[in-house]
Amino acid sequence: MSTVSTPPGPDSAPGRRDAEVTKAAIVKAARHLLARQAHADITLKAVAERAGVSPPLIVKYFGNKDALFARVMSFDTDADALLDAPLPGLGRHMVRHVLASQRDRGADPLLRIAFAPLHGDHGEVLRANFRAQVTERLAARLTGPDPGLRAELAVAALVGLGVMYGIARGPHLRGTDADAVAERYGPLVQAQLTPAG
Amino acid sequence: MSTVSTPPGPDSAPGRRDAEVTKAAIVKAARHLLARQAHADITLKAVAERAGVSPPLIVKYFGNKDALFARVMSFDTDADALLDAPLPGLGRHMVRHVLASQRDRGADPLLRIAFAPLHGDHGEVLRANFRAQVTERLAARLTGPDPGLRAELAVAALVGLGVMYGIARGPHLRGTDADAVAERYGPLVQAQLTPAG
Repeated sequence: MSTVSTPPGPDSAPGRRDAEVTKAAIVKAARHLLARQAHADITLKAVAERAGVSPPLIVKYFGNKDALFARVMSFDTDADALLDAPLPGLGRHMVRHVLASQRDRGADPLLRIAFAPLHGDHGEVLRANFRAQVTERLAARLTGPDPGLRAELAVAALVGLGVMYGIARGPHLRGTDADAVAERYGPLVQAQLTPAG
Repeated sequence: MSTVSTPPGPDSAPGRRDAEVTKAAIVKAARHLLARQAHADITLKAVAERAGVSPPLIVKYFGNKDALFARVMSFDTDADALLDAPLPGLGRHMVRHVLASQRDRGADPLLRIAFAPLHGDHGEVLRANFRAQVTERLAARLTGPDPGLRAELAVAALVGLGVMYGIARGPHLRGTDADAVAERYGPLVQAQLTPAG
């Protein structure tokens, strides 16, 4: 099949979208392989094959293998979206974000922490990133006693929600409207963020 | 070093304890291998080697490979302990149980669901067992609307707690007394079990 090429508009939006789709496929392929073998054993060629692109395209988009894996092991981009709400409504927002990620993308970037290997560099990097980019970043927004513990417990509830939805595939959870779930589960998360006096 | 052998008492308690320790080592070895390769590719010999026992001892204790893996993929025994409290205090009890499992055994049998493969028989068996033996069993004890959803959300919070403790290794959670964690997190779980009118 030949592809029909449309000239880019003034803002090149279609081209940018294609690039984002391709980058996402590369990151997804790298994550897939990383969940199955050691970082050092994964070649750019293997990532490229799985993503259906050429190795030079990966170099173009990410620079090199180390830069690609730094991106793959980062929680920054997802944490931006996860934490993007004012504190009083953050519990419900985070619950909706986890459910939307699962429903729309069939994945939940926070869940990568559940697959972090217990031994080796890859697991340690994931754990350190998770703390700095998710739990400690959330803790920094909290007031009152034990912000670090409360942030970890709030995030624990969210990670568990992702496991129940995406891995255990709880039929009741999957069959319930996201707003109704947020209504039930959001206050639990919120209770860690802004405990009632 | 030689071991000092004490004669078994009238109830053979030391012998029974040794057998339990050995069985636990065999189950642990089987779980370890199952997390890394397909069920069909795992030999009794490989399980025996990892557990440091002989293959005939596995046959003696479990019958055969299928029976061993049925045990390994069951949540029944853990669910007995997890759910062993009256409903009004069950939230705190379950939180303490997860933390005690993590602290005393360095593992949390509920967490196996987080590692269930998304494809293949092994994952489907784990998911079906998890539903029948954990979430639906809990749901059967709940009154009021949406017991199935509420049970899944309560268990989600517990699974997330196990991930935060055992895999993400949240330093605040690990550094906090289990009773203090149960005090903060138990009410969240309880709110799913017995929602305030």
